[in-house]
Amino acid sequence: MKKVALVMGSESDLPVMKKAADTLRELSVPFETHVFSAHRTPDEAKEFFASAEENGFGVVVCAAGMAAHLAGAAAANTTLPVIGIPCRGGALDGLDALLATVQMPSGLPVATVALNGGVNAALLAAQIIALSEPKLSAALKQRRENDKNKVLEADRGIADKI
Amino acid sequence: MKKVALVMGSESDLPVMKKAADTLRELSVPFETHVFSAHRTPDEAKEFFASAEENGFGVVVCAAGMAAHLAGAAAANTTLPVIGIPCRGGALDGLDALLATVQMPSGLPVATVALNGGVNAALLAAQIIALSEPKLSAALKQRRENDKNKVLEADRGIADKI
Amino acid sequence: MKKVALVMGSESDLPVMKKAADTLRELSVPFETHVFSAHRTPDEAKEFFASAEENGFGVVVCAAGMAAHLAGAAAANTTLPVIGIPCRGGALDGLDALLATVQMPSGLPVATVALNGGVNAALLAAQIIALSEPKLSAALKQRRENDKNKVLEADRGIADKI
Amino acid sequence: MKKVALVMGSESDLPVMKKAADTLRELSVPFETHVFSAHRTPDEAKEFFASAEENGFGVVVCAAGMAAHLAGAAAANTTLPVIGIPCRGGALDGLDALLATVQMPSGLPVATVALNGGVNAALLAAQIIALSEPKLSAALKQRRENDKNKVLEADRGIADKI
Amino acid sequence: MKKVALVMGSESDLPVMKKAADTLRELSVPFETHVFSAHRTPDEAKEFFASAEENGFGVVVCAAGMAAHLAGAAAANTTLPVIGIPCRGGALDGLDALLATVQMPSGLPVATVALNGGVNAALLAAQIIALSEPKLSAALKQRRENDKNKVLEADRGIADKI
Amino acid sequence: MKKVALVMGSESDLPVMKKAADTLRELSVPFETHVFSAHRTPDEAKEFFASAEENGFGVVVCAAGMAAHLAGAAAANTTLPVIGIPCRGGALDGLDALLATVQMPSGLPVATVALNGGVNAALLAAQIIALSEPKLSAALKQRRENDKNKVLEADRGIADKI
Amino acid sequence: MKKVALVMGSESDLPVMKKAADTLRELSVPFETHVFSAHRTPDEAKEFFASAEENGFGVVVCAAGMAAHLAGAAAANTTLPVIGIPCRGGALDGLDALLATVQMPSGLPVATVALNGGVNAALLAAQIIALSEPKLSAALKQRRENDKNKVLEADRGIADKI
Amino acid sequence: MKKVALVMGSESDLPVMKKAADTLRELSVPFETHVFSAHRTPDEAKEFFASAEENGFGVVVCAAGMAAHLAGAAAANTTLPVIGIPCRGGALDGLDALLATVQMPSGLPVATVALNGGVNAALLAAQIIALSEPKLSAALKQRRENDKNKVLEADRGIADKI
Repeated sequence: MKKVALVMGSESDLPVMKKAADTLRELSVPFETHVFSAHRTPDEAKEFFASAEENGFGVVVCAAGMAAHLAGAAAANTTLPVIGIPCRGGALDGLDALLATVQMPSGLPVATVALNGGVNAALLAAQIIALSEPKLSAALKQRRENDKNKVLEADRGIADKI
Repeated sequence: MKKVALVMGSESDLPVMKKAADTLRELSVPFETHVFSAHRTPDEAKEFFASAEENGFGVVVCAAGMAAHLAGAAAANTTLPVIGIPCRGGALDGLDALLATVQMPSGLPVATVALNGGVNAALLAAQIIALSEPKLSAALKQRRENDKNKVLEADRGIADKI
Repeated sequence: MKKVALVMGSESDLPVMKKAADTLRELSVPFETHVFSAHRTPDEAKEFFASAEENGFGVVVCAAGMAAHLAGAAAANTTLPVIGIPCRGGALDGLDALLATVQMPSGLPVATVALNGGVNAALLAAQIIALSEPKLSAALKQRRENDKNKVLEADRGIADKI
Repeated sequence: MKKVALVMGSESDLPVMKKAADTLRELSVPFETHVFSAHRTPDEAKEFFASAEENGFGVVVCAAGMAAHLAGAAAANTTLPVIGIPCRGGALDGLDALLATVQMPSGLPVATVALNGGVNAALLAAQIIALSEPKLSAALKQRRENDKNKVLEADRGIADKI
Repeated sequence: MKKVALVMGSESDLPVMKKAADTLRELSVPFETHVFSAHRTPDEAKEFFASAEENGFGVVVCAAGMAAHLAGAAAANTTLPVIGIPCRGGALDGLDALLATVQMPSGLPVATVALNGGVNAALLAAQIIALSEPKLSAALKQRRENDKNKVLEADRGIADKI
Repeated sequence: MKKVALVMGSESDLPVMKKAADTLRELSVPFETHVFSAHRTPDEAKEFFASAEENGFGVVVCAAGMAAHLAGAAAANTTLPVIGIPCRGGALDGLDALLATVQMPSGLPVATVALNGGVNAALLAAQIIALSEPKLSAALKQRRENDKNKVLEADRGIADKI
Repeated sequence: MKKVALVMGSESDLPVMKKAADTLRELSVPFETHVFSAHRTPDEAKEFFASAEENGFGVVVCAAGMAAHLAGAAAANTTLPVIGIPCRGGALDGLDALLATVQMPSGLPVATVALNGGVNAALLAAQIIALSEPKLSAALKQRRENDKNKVLEADRGIADKI
Repeated sequence: MKKVALVMGSESDLPVMKKAADTLRELSVPFETHVFSAHRTPDEAKEFFASAEENGFGVVVCAAGMAAHLAGAAAANTTLPVIGIPCRGGALDGLDALLATVQMPSGLPVATVALNGGVNAALLAAQIIALSEPKLSAALKQRRENDKNKVLEADRGIADKI
């Protein structure tokens, strides 16, 4: 199975990325974690993204805040699907990271998920890989079933709580 | 090769989706186009999304404006990767569609691209399918090369224009 | 008297919906509470909304956050009046939920109240039902009177507090 | 059948309100149209809203832009359901009117629809009145059916247009 | 000397208005404090504003949050200068109150100050009254001088703190 | 009667300020018009504002766009009431000018009116001067009456237009 | 004298950059113009920025729209001062480009000017170079003087135009 | 070496400016710290900015919040490069200060850095001064190297933390 690359722009994004890692573990999707900054380590970041495909990765997930350029830098250096997680930071409540991640120019898509959306980034990566991995596809469907059942259980208990 | 589903919430989104269709044609990726509304045809939309996988689709692309729920409705009914194109409409300059598309709850990712980003939605879909289609992967790399060359050509001519 | 359906997208919306429930209890308006997710339980949600009218409901109230699609899903499946409560969440201070709830396309209105506006959603539901329930109409007028008296009492005491 | 009051804050809101009027005519819902300003004719506005119930109205629809206070003024003077249409104006692309309409304090709900949402305001008013008017309820369901059919027809023709 | 009316929409605005009261006391400007709601006590509010001029007031200051209509209601009922203080509330960080206060339609100005700007509302009121009160004008100039001196003192000490 | 100073930051603000001038002419309030830039002519601007009081002005009105500092510069140099008109410019639809005008720090109020609110700035200035000019106060009340009558006339004709 | 590099992300930014070029010409500051995309030509862009200092440049000016990463890419590859011009594009009225340019992480400043601020970017570059070029410094002071005189001339003529 | 002026609009901006001071100390760049308010001490501020060049300063850094006019006041009175730090305050999460700092009119650039960006303001000042100070240029390059190494170290350890 192809691996997922989890790349964060700074160690401060670890709490968001940890949720992605936990989700991939739960689905038995192999992944590798890195810290690379589009600005502080542009060469190492570029090198990593440019060789991701030949190194067995199938999807690249990037998490960054503020003027979040990391996912864009990944997109510029690979034709693998790139998923961007805009991280909430100290100001403007994440609007800066969201726009810097999603508003990519024509030719270089970044698949953007919700602010701090670590779980959804991992699920999207898994859905992409599952296109040629029937067991993973089944695991994703099972996870949906579980989610559904949690809601139905909540529905059964809600009348007593309100 | 798996097909891409291009679904728009209303025929008024055609100009945006046409750019997606043209891009897929250029890359020889098979696709099918539909108009389904999350609100006006909830049953038909659901039916289409729920059977997309068994009908040979690999990726679902949805374009919608305002309180853009179409991509979310797709995500709720399939575990295929779903790409959302928020469309600019008459008010708030697209902020409504962007937030309604990208801010999906945990468990149901929508891979959101830029406002009116028809070309990028198609490219992202192609990148996903290309994971198991080496020729498509090569075509995507060639397209990047062409894009690069256009910029370099613009660079050579810019001194005479400024 | 027709019942009010209080449907929340997740149990985390309970504090907001509890204020709606308390307000309806105070006005002796019958209600039923549910947890259904537009995304995690699309079929159960649809089923509930589509049969709400024949099950004796007169108004449907939905509370959801982020890309808040629940009220829209209700509106798509019933012609009963649907009231949407956009809930504040972790990012963008509720702007995402507000726009996703209020900016519905032509044909499918959602009566949107203020962010976290549980009390007002309940009052609006009661005002709608009161059109054919004179006693409820009188109770609503009495509640207004009480609100007015609280303000007037505050006015009498304010000079001593400033 | 109870009448709908269509009140606009200024004659410049006529294009938005005309869509509401046309929708009500189409559904054979009786209505009356007025121009009252919360600021320029506070007494006449108050008088109208305060006596709306006894004058045979079942729902009040208000359209206003900028610091849109008209729906709030209606809500303050009647316990009938009040629907607010925030109108786009010359600046901030309607965000001012949307927030001034929807963010009402606890106790005084305004059922807010989308920016310039004249059609949806009328439909919401009709849905409210239809609770005790089975024929109107049927007409609303028929209108939904027609909307659905238009989408399905668009879907059948879209492949030839893209 | 003409009095200043300090009117808040709810007792929860007291902390903001207290700063206005303290500033007026410090400048020996007479004032009266009230709690009136544009929505909960429309008649009492109107009555107060409409008779403010004949009751010896020269300026009306209103503080309110959310869809802040109180200053607009004042402006609609008097030709005295009306000052509006938009109050920060639970959501959208005060943007709702700011726009609802400042974006008044042509004909009915509200002199809007900064979010939670109690001190500045009082100073503006004092500046208006000072046009015909030389002693108050002198006091305002002295206050400016004091403010200046505090900054200059801070400037002298800053090198030791950084 | 004290004069009103109409100061614009650039001649491009003339259309907005012309509406202020026309309104003052209509009310027979004397005024003087100037172009001073807080940034390009800081000394001349300061000089003008600092001597405005002794030169017979009662109110200073400033119109500026973008990072609109002109009203703030006026407030820093006089204790006369300063009214700020934020002007819409080429970007962000005036939000920049609005925030730069209204969010003044404690101690230096700017009475901010709506975006491009030339008429309201003039009316506010007139209301301030009218505190000691009974004829002007009467003219303002008459203008309100006229505004009211225009709305009532629109109300009488609206049924034929919808 | 050190040269200024004018780099735009796409030829569509030429109108904005032309104003920068004209301003530098007027001040006799040498410059070179390029089109490089952070995403389409990451290697050429990097190469150019990394060698800018040894190639005789003193300041780098970058213009880009949407998720504007070009100035950030420059900052990542040189310690020369980098000036960023956020360009208005088709959506969100430039807010995306502004935040993506200015919100750089600690360690990598981008000197951001106003949206579409070509003239100011050139002036800032000239002010930086002028620190060791007295004649340029004098030219900048003269330009300020000219700007001042234009405002004063406008001031002299304004009374006749209003 | 030319000095850097660190000017804050109020002592409450000290935490932000302290980071700038620490960064300059670390790089051995001489600086002087001041508190001047564009509004409370306009004359002293002007005097300081107008004589900054002849007093040996090479760059002026200003930090201010809300309607942040301090950097603009600096720009109006010197042709030295002026760097603006918009400070987050109590409301609107810093959007007010950001727009008031960056949206300067043509002719008067302010080099704006991120919200609360004290470190980056100091680095930008140092980069400007380093154009004629090779040792400072080397120190800046070394700092970048250190930053890079910190990221690479984080990268080596991240696999154990996730």
